[in-house]
Amino acid sequence: MRRIDNFNAGPSALPLPALERAQAELLEFEGTGMSIIEHSHRGKAYERVHFEAIALLKELLGLGDDMHVLFMQGGASQQFATLPMNFLRPGTHADYVITGGWAEKALEETKWFGEARVAATTAGPGNPKYTRIPKAEELELDPAAAYVHLTSNNTLFGTQWQTFPETKAPLVVDMSSDILWRPTDMSKMSMVYAGAQKNVGPSGVTIVLIRKDFLKSAREDIPTIFRYGTLRIR
Amino acid sequence: MRRIDNFNAGPSALPLPALERAQAELLEFEGTGMSIIEHSHRGKAYERVHFEAIALLKELLGLGDDMHVLFMQGGASQQFATLPMNFLRPGTHADYVITGGWAEKALEETKWFGEARVAATTAGPGNPKYTRIPKAEELELDPAAAYVHLTSNNTLFGTQWQTFPETKAPLVVDMSSDILWRPTDMSKMSMVYAGAQKNVGPSGVTIVLIRKDFLKSAREDIPTIFRYGTLRIR
Repeated sequence: MRRIDNFNAGPSALPLPALERAQAELLEFEGTGMSIIEHSHRGKAYERVHFEAIALLKELLGLGDDMHVLFMQGGASQQFATLPMNFLRPGTHADYVITGGWAEKALEETKWFGEARVAATTAGPGNPKYTRIPKAEELELDPAAAYVHLTSNNTLFGTQWQTFPETKAPLVVDMSSDILWRPTDMSKMSMVYAGAQKNVGPSGVTIVLIRKDFLKSAREDIPTIFRYGTLRIR
Repeated sequence: MRRIDNFNAGPSALPLPALERAQAELLEFEGTGMSIIEHSHRGKAYERVHFEAIALLKELLGLGDDMHVLFMQGGASQQFATLPMNFLRPGTHADYVITGGWAEKALEETKWFGEARVAATTAGPGNPKYTRIPKAEELELDPAAAYVHLTSNNTLFGTQWQTFPETKAPLVVDMSSDILWRPTDMSKMSMVYAGAQKNVGPSGVTIVLIRKDFLKSAREDIPTIFRYGTLRIR
């Protein structure tokens, strides 16, 4: 077979050894007489896979035990809504740094839940394209914001944050298109989310990393399924 | 290999021929040089699979072109919240028929969005267990309700609707545990949702069937990702 690599938008090419192992184990997982996709989500076989994936991700990202690793659904687009749903309260606001179309979409979905302010943008009248990230002195960050949101990489124009800003408010980063592409200092981030399909695996799973002390500030008066606290490993 | 069948809560056992075909095609789909999970969601190879699945489901359920078939994420539990998010408006209410724990959970999640009334329940003081479905004359249905919600099968007590009630308001049915188990008259339903993992396939996909004229009454002032209209095939 001649393998084709997909460099289009959407799901990434996967390593052949990973596909081969998934294929070999698809009918029966570790001698259990069942496929892993038939196993109960409460069973030991599935839990081993789940917790091993969490442990490997923590190792690769250099995360400590002060971060929850959640596997969610709905992609980054669902996070655009669930993030403000969990953390925006009346009388507070969030700061959004706009460096591309995905950052615009994230900002757009805050309006259903509360106030968001544009802390910086690198496009505007006379400059319709995002061709750079803002300089440190251009960031109008409010230390009292519920959080600061930025998109680590803008795939359309290639505007990528090489180092992340120091923020007083909790920093939340959409890393869908560049998570795990290089070692990254995660100590500045209070939350990271990333659809898995671009850099990590097939579509269907969204990685959410959330610092335990940031999670404590989340709202409880929202639907159960959308609370990050519902999905955390206790 | 000795195959084990899983009758526990959660994902179902899958037919061996289905697993074998998935396995055979996992590395390369139809001579394209790529796995189907590497293909772009906008590409022809994936679209063929997607639209074939919709066509087969419509054929099995006897659905006409007045129903949208959506593939969503988050399971029935996410539908508990997205249903009232889409259809409850100030000054309206929904009627919920309670015949088990899952119906209770669906009712519970309406409170974030508006008013829901219990149109009937078969448990209560002195009768803590749901051991039957309500009789027709016990249903206190308001013709002006935004919708009527019921759960077609209560897995814990085995209370299953054999025939569905006639309702003036749009009927919405959670069929997660018995969709496709027998021929069902879908003409009464304005919407059906079902996590795929129990009766149809592995977990990860939620089937949502929604009548086109019911969808027209959905709210547009909610986050983009949670609008049923965002996901419909135009």
